[in-house]
Amino acid sequence: MPTSYYKLTVEYDGLFYHGWQKQPNRPTLQGTIETALTALTGETIPVVSSGRTDAGVHAVAQVVTFQSDRVFEPYRLVRGLNALLPHDIAVKTVEKVSASFHPRYNAKRKTYSYFIYNGNTRSPHRRQTAWHVPMPLDIRKMRQAAKRLTGDHDFTSLTAAENDANDCRVDLKTIRILKVGEEIRITLVASRFLRYMVRNIVGLLVEVGRGRRSVKEIAGILEGKDRRLAGPTAPPHGLFLVDVVYEEKRSTGMAG
Amino acid sequence: MPTSYYKLTVEYDGLFYHGWQKQPNRPTLQGTIETALTALTGETIPVVSSGRTDAGVHAVAQVVTFQSDRVFEPYRLVRGLNALLPHDIAVKTVEKVSASFHPRYNAKRKTYSYFIYNGNTRSPHRRQTAWHVPMPLDIRKMRQAAKRLTGDHDFTSLTAAENDANDCRVDLKTIRILKVGEEIRITLVASRFLRYMVRNIVGLLVEVGRGRRSVKEIAGILEGKDRRLAGPTAPPHGLFLVDVVYEEKRSTGMAG
Repeated sequence: MPTSYYKLTVEYDGLFYHGWQKQPNRPTLQGTIETALTALTGETIPVVSSGRTDAGVHAVAQVVTFQSDRVFEPYRLVRGLNALLPHDIAVKTVEKVSASFHPRYNAKRKTYSYFIYNGNTRSPHRRQTAWHVPMPLDIRKMRQAAKRLTGDHDFTSLTAAENDANDCRVDLKTIRILKVGEEIRITLVASRFLRYMVRNIVGLLVEVGRGRRSVKEIAGILEGKDRRLAGPTAPPHGLFLVDVVYEEKRSTGMAG
Repeated sequence: MPTSYYKLTVEYDGLFYHGWQKQPNRPTLQGTIETALTALTGETIPVVSSGRTDAGVHAVAQVVTFQSDRVFEPYRLVRGLNALLPHDIAVKTVEKVSASFHPRYNAKRKTYSYFIYNGNTRSPHRRQTAWHVPMPLDIRKMRQAAKRLTGDHDFTSLTAAENDANDCRVDLKTIRILKVGEEIRITLVASRFLRYMVRNIVGLLVEVGRGRRSVKEIAGILEGKDRRLAGPTAPPHGLFLVDVVYEEKRSTGMAG
């Protein structure tokens, strides 16, 4: 029997999970999805994702792959897994892919959005999906700072102090800042992101928006290559993995 | 000491509450807000709202009033109450009003929005704030049906079978249906609404959208004045009380 390869897009509310990566005795996204796959197939099937979202981080379309010696109809996998998964995780699509497809290494472009609720008083409806920043924010200055962060830089100052990446150079393609009413959405696109990179960039942009750091400081923060030079880390619950784009030719199946 | 009158706008996630109206031994919005007021002031202060939202129904801006012989600075009430209220309830503004102001009787226009998530598979992020209808819906037909429901009608067929309103005539000013991506937002405006009226209208509109009821049937459903003639009641978690508008002159205070 030849091995089949499956690519799933998965939406999740990360609130109750200790992040993507499996850990003993703690609910994780990887562990919960693998448990559902085992319940459906009777096999122990490890899954791989486009990246390990941290505890509390959400996804609109995380990409997850697994392989099996059995053949599944994609739409049956969608239905079967959604019947078994808890309400805060859902498989949106399933397609067959080639053996060479890897959800992390083949990613051409990843998009994250970070939501800030900028109202005076806290919002019950955004309490689990946006960072509440009640102070006035200068959006124009935040956009100027974002422009200086965009491009091919060493992001050592804006990744986790103990990060496991050998190379902190990232080509940050775009940072877009949109304000609608009391909601600010910061969208970042790159081929890869370092650990805490989005949350550290958002933390720094909010410092600039509040007037506690200046746009001029950005170049020095990047050049210093020291995490202590930048601002605080924004909390996880405002962060969403929105999209992962691959080379068109790699995907061979159909949407589930 | 003269009595002071206060008008609060309150946002809440209704998921964990057995509706607005106070009940013994069950969490309600009225009960929780009165408990916070007592904790803040040391007094037993009953509150009145613009209407009693049902169990599981949300509000972006419910209007709540109370009176006291003590004088409070509006901004202090906002801060004090938000420090005491649970995370799923927040006071957004407080203003002083005249003794004649009544949040229900003086309401000129109330706006409700009902959210439907129309994607094929369930959405973890909308599971608590939208009704998942996975079947295709004919929005054009739903708009035609909405047009026939708009206007001054007897809504007996679209209120609770056991409703306590003597008069079921309501001037339903507008029903607007907006579809963006997989989300459908149905917004209704009237000076007052009967019990379950919005959810029954949405239930009927979805029946029309699915092709199980026709636009032509609407007139007969209204004329029949019988709840059994209309469709099912849409679930509460898609419903939001969005806005209550009063005569401009009645409000005398300032935003908190």
